[in-house]
Amino acid sequence: MITKIDHIAIVTPDLDASAGFWADVLGLTVARTEHVSAEDVNIAFLPVGESDIELLEPTSPTSGVARYLDKKGAGIHHLCLESDDLEADLARLHAANVPLITEKPITNAYGKRYAFIHPKGTGGVLIELYEGAK
Amino acid sequence: MITKIDHIAIVTPDLDASAGFWADVLGLTVARTEHVSAEDVNIAFLPVGESDIELLEPTSPTSGVARYLDKKGAGIHHLCLESDDLEADLARLHAANVPLITEKPITNAYGKRYAFIHPKGTGGVLIELYEGAK
Repeated sequence: MITKIDHIAIVTPDLDASAGFWADVLGLTVARTEHVSAEDVNIAFLPVGESDIELLEPTSPTSGVARYLDKKGAGIHHLCLESDDLEADLARLHAANVPLITEKPITNAYGKRYAFIHPKGTGGVLIELYEGAK
Repeated sequence: MITKIDHIAIVTPDLDASAGFWADVLGLTVARTEHVSAEDVNIAFLPVGESDIELLEPTSPTSGVARYLDKKGAGIHHLCLESDDLEADLARLHAANVPLITEKPITNAYGKRYAFIHPKGTGGVLIELYEGAK
């Protein structure tokens, strides 16, 4: 079951400038930053209610996020929904023939699994499903 | 102060098909639907945690949402953040010279006020601020 919006990911060419808007102007707080070398991105996490705004800055011109930025420009990259049963939610997607970008869930540095649903199966939205607490 | 994500608005050419994905495949529930004649849209609201997925279907080919759909295609239209003090949050935006689409807040059918921030001032994201509970 989908339990909440985990985060909204927003691509930016300049993490500091973008964090300035979300923190200094909108009043959110940068709770932490990360460099994910496997994806060549810097990430800033700004909590808002039970969700996060996740700012993504590419650190290599050939990364997926850099290519997205070149093609689509800065803005919302994907919507991440928390699932309390990733297997069951992925099984429903498979049964409905909804295409996944990641056929098998990927495990992140925190031991949590996630998968991406292709926008062509969702009505144009890149959706990440993220394994939350059961 | 920004307190939570109120909703993510997603434009679709076909509300029933789109609601089918979000409800039948992802397992969310259509809590209510509305026709907003002032904006020529049908809206379906699907709660997810403390937020909503809001599906928007244009009902006139000349409406703002129809023009967005023609230009950008189906997908995420805007991010709505709840504010517990709209005046103070708008004052901070004004002080930072962030351009608003709605210079004065608009009052909706429920007596709640909202305003849209121009994407050129936010790093490419159309942001709505919505007046929530104080």
